[in-house]
Amino acid sequence: MQFDQELALQELFEFLRMPSVSADSAYQAGMQQAVQFLQTKLTRLGFKAEVRPTEGHPVVYAERLTAPGKPTVMIYGHYDVQPEAPLEEWRTPPFEPTIVDGRIYARGSTDDKGQLYAHVKGIETLLQQNGELPVNIKILFEGEEEIGSPNLAKYLEAHSAELKADVILISDGSRFSADTPSITYGLRGLSYIEVHVQGASRDLHSGAYGGAVPNPINVLCEMIAQLKDDQGRVTIPGFYDGIQELTEQEREMWNTLPFDEGQWGASIGIDQFPGEAGYSVLERIWARPTLDVNGIWGGYQGEGAKTVIAAKAGAKISMRLVPGQDPNRITELALKHIPTLAPEGVKVHAFEHHGGDPFVVDLNSPYVKAANRALQRVYNKDAVFIRTGGSIPIAATFTRIVGAPILFVDMGLDIDAPHSPNESFAVQDYLNGILTSAYVLDELGRL
Amino acid sequence: MQFDQELALQELFEFLRMPSVSADSAYQAGMQQAVQFLQTKLTRLGFKAEVRPTEGHPVVYAERLTAPGKPTVMIYGHYDVQPEAPLEEWRTPPFEPTIVDGRIYARGSTDDKGQLYAHVKGIETLLQQNGELPVNIKILFEGEEEIGSPNLAKYLEAHSAELKADVILISDGSRFSADTPSITYGLRGLSYIEVHVQGASRDLHSGAYGGAVPNPINVLCEMIAQLKDDQGRVTIPGFYDGIQELTEQEREMWNTLPFDEGQWGASIGIDQFPGEAGYSVLERIWARPTLDVNGIWGGYQGEGAKTVIAAKAGAKISMRLVPGQDPNRITELALKHIPTLAPEGVKVHAFEHHGGDPFVVDLNSPYVKAANRALQRVYNKDAVFIRTGGSIPIAATFTRIVGAPILFVDMGLDIDAPHSPNESFAVQDYLNGILTSAYVLDELGRL
Repeated sequence: MQFDQELALQELFEFLRMPSVSADSAYQAGMQQAVQFLQTKLTRLGFKAEVRPTEGHPVVYAERLTAPGKPTVMIYGHYDVQPEAPLEEWRTPPFEPTIVDGRIYARGSTDDKGQLYAHVKGIETLLQQNGELPVNIKILFEGEEEIGSPNLAKYLEAHSAELKADVILISDGSRFSADTPSITYGLRGLSYIEVHVQGASRDLHSGAYGGAVPNPINVLCEMIAQLKDDQGRVTIPGFYDGIQELTEQEREMWNTLPFDEGQWGASIGIDQFPGEAGYSVLERIWARPTLDVNGIWGGYQGEGAKTVIAAKAGAKISMRLVPGQDPNRITELALKHIPTLAPEGVKVHAFEHHGGDPFVVDLNSPYVKAANRALQRVYNKDAVFIRTGGSIPIAATFTRIVGAPILFVDMGLDIDAPHSPNESFAVQDYLNGILTSAYVLDELGRL
Repeated sequence: MQFDQELALQELFEFLRMPSVSADSAYQAGMQQAVQFLQTKLTRLGFKAEVRPTEGHPVVYAERLTAPGKPTVMIYGHYDVQPEAPLEEWRTPPFEPTIVDGRIYARGSTDDKGQLYAHVKGIETLLQQNGELPVNIKILFEGEEEIGSPNLAKYLEAHSAELKADVILISDGSRFSADTPSITYGLRGLSYIEVHVQGASRDLHSGAYGGAVPNPINVLCEMIAQLKDDQGRVTIPGFYDGIQELTEQEREMWNTLPFDEGQWGASIGIDQFPGEAGYSVLERIWARPTLDVNGIWGGYQGEGAKTVIAAKAGAKISMRLVPGQDPNRITELALKHIPTLAPEGVKVHAFEHHGGDPFVVDLNSPYVKAANRALQRVYNKDAVFIRTGGSIPIAATFTRIVGAPILFVDMGLDIDAPHSPNESFAVQDYLNGILTSAYVLDELGRL
């Protein structure tokens, strides 16, 4: 399949220059630019493309239903990106895409603008080649994935009739490795909470008061330290109840994957892999739940020294969940347990940010097999079947409302560093992603 | 002793109108006015008064050595003040002293211009009464106390010969309570360090990696949690070695002080007083060492949620020290111990900010007794002997170079709100301060 690679890059760069950070209201203009860019492009491709408001950032919905008798494919992606902080660690400007050594450096390059736009170009390629599409296509691009899709479920419920499809196609993650195409059949779920600890009503001089007043930072640290035991297991009562353990078949399949712990660690600068005792690295990140503090703050963070006892400290804490764990239940357990860890003398306020269901797809589905054939055409080898440690909180709701399984055909790689400074996407992965999109749609059209 | 109270207030007001903010170079003119005001006034009182440059703001040094055979008293104070911010919280202009309900509201009114000038007026009162001073006096008024006296140690070393005295008199703090004159005979010392924990070489997606990589925030919290045991005692090996325990006499003396824990807590919004088991609140803040985290940071601190495992986290940690603890030794112990608390897989960098020696004066010293007699003459009651939990890092250097003990005879009160908006100084405390200065010098002259 042929397409203009230069043009494909040029268009993606234009899209990446729009700073569509959903978490920060200062980026409102960037969000609007991205929405208009997508609507214009999809309209040009013959889609009926609309910007649909939500209570938060809008959804871009588009459809081109011109293949009677053929399956209907729903393509999902998100046009919003993570905040760029810490800006000082970027080697190139986050919103000025720059190619270095065959990689496109920009916030959103791999997560998810690059992968989203590969589908747009895949569709365009099919249209240029055949004048028509092999399947009916519905597109849903949301703008709140990086803040937990707070309004998407409501949107899906409200538009359930028009969203019906036979299969959902999502590319928003990482392939197994640079030379291994893969299909992701499982995701972890998520429970994300925030905890605030308040001591005195104002910041105190640590000399005049230190020794007889609560220190919210020390207290918060002591509480966090109690959330895991010395085997790396989360200590929230009931946390592990009902978890679906891995099958022997899965453990064996994963053991044969060409995964080199040492190499994996070296790519992120570590040579130790602390985690839950009794599980391999892949099992821990794909199929075991975790608890990680994602942010902490309190007191003086500036240069030098300030002798203050802060009035308040806080932390953001997320738990990745696996099949068998209900995010609402886990959140409830955590919000109930954490305040009990506080000593007398402080006030604890713990609240929920968002959650997401864990998810697995049936490996024997014809859609999975069609996707595998498409990947064989791009890479000349079979795909491997993996899970991912990440979460797409909306996946479970999505599959229920659309009434279809989800195919996760990822184009990125972990070394793309999504969410980190210097996020990137290999030029070759973007170009292969365009081919992958076209071939997957083509194979689905043959079912 | 008689003096013109109206004139004493008028002169202090003139001094307070000069905005001598050392932290802000925009106030250079105010600093110069204050220096000239003091030099002129001291010269009129028969002192040889000089403005001595430093690498920062100048020192005003003055001496009147006209009492052969009598003790030499070094009086220390500072003419610089804290910045006035936040200006909008002041009810009267910070540099236009205003009396409301018997209190002088102005920046520097209690800290330290009011207390400093009480000594100037005390000296003047003695001269008017007797034509001569009962002791030899050396005066050192610095202009950088509010920015940490960065050049004072160097000045002291360079002028050690001329600074020799028998006793040092400092009034730059708070009496025990409004109706209780007090002498502060002890200060805590300080060891202030910073700890950084590094996990991976970059921030990681908590989904893609969470479960098999070190999380520096969790690790830092676990390390901090181990720095105190469940009795509130610091666990750094050797931390308590050599500490001079409180004497029974001191414990009894403090137990009889009119100190109301409930009222003290209410003023800062707490009703619990967590701390080292086995000690009262006053003992904990005046005479027991502590460890407090003064700041912590890591990961995402912004609005909403970010699913990141930070590459780095850090904390600022200070320890208040008591007599028997050497700050250099404690810093060394902490810097050696803390990295041992880290699990494998992270790198720890711990380093020193600054330290300060703890300080106590012998309660049986004739100078302490002379000061007590002076306070009896002003207030018609005995002084109480207290310590303070804060640190004056320069105190130990001062006492070493001058070769004399320090008498902290404070005139202010905590409710004066030094460093805060609406700083004030009771008119009566200022007038009593003038008497206190005169009587202390008089009593020292009788030794």
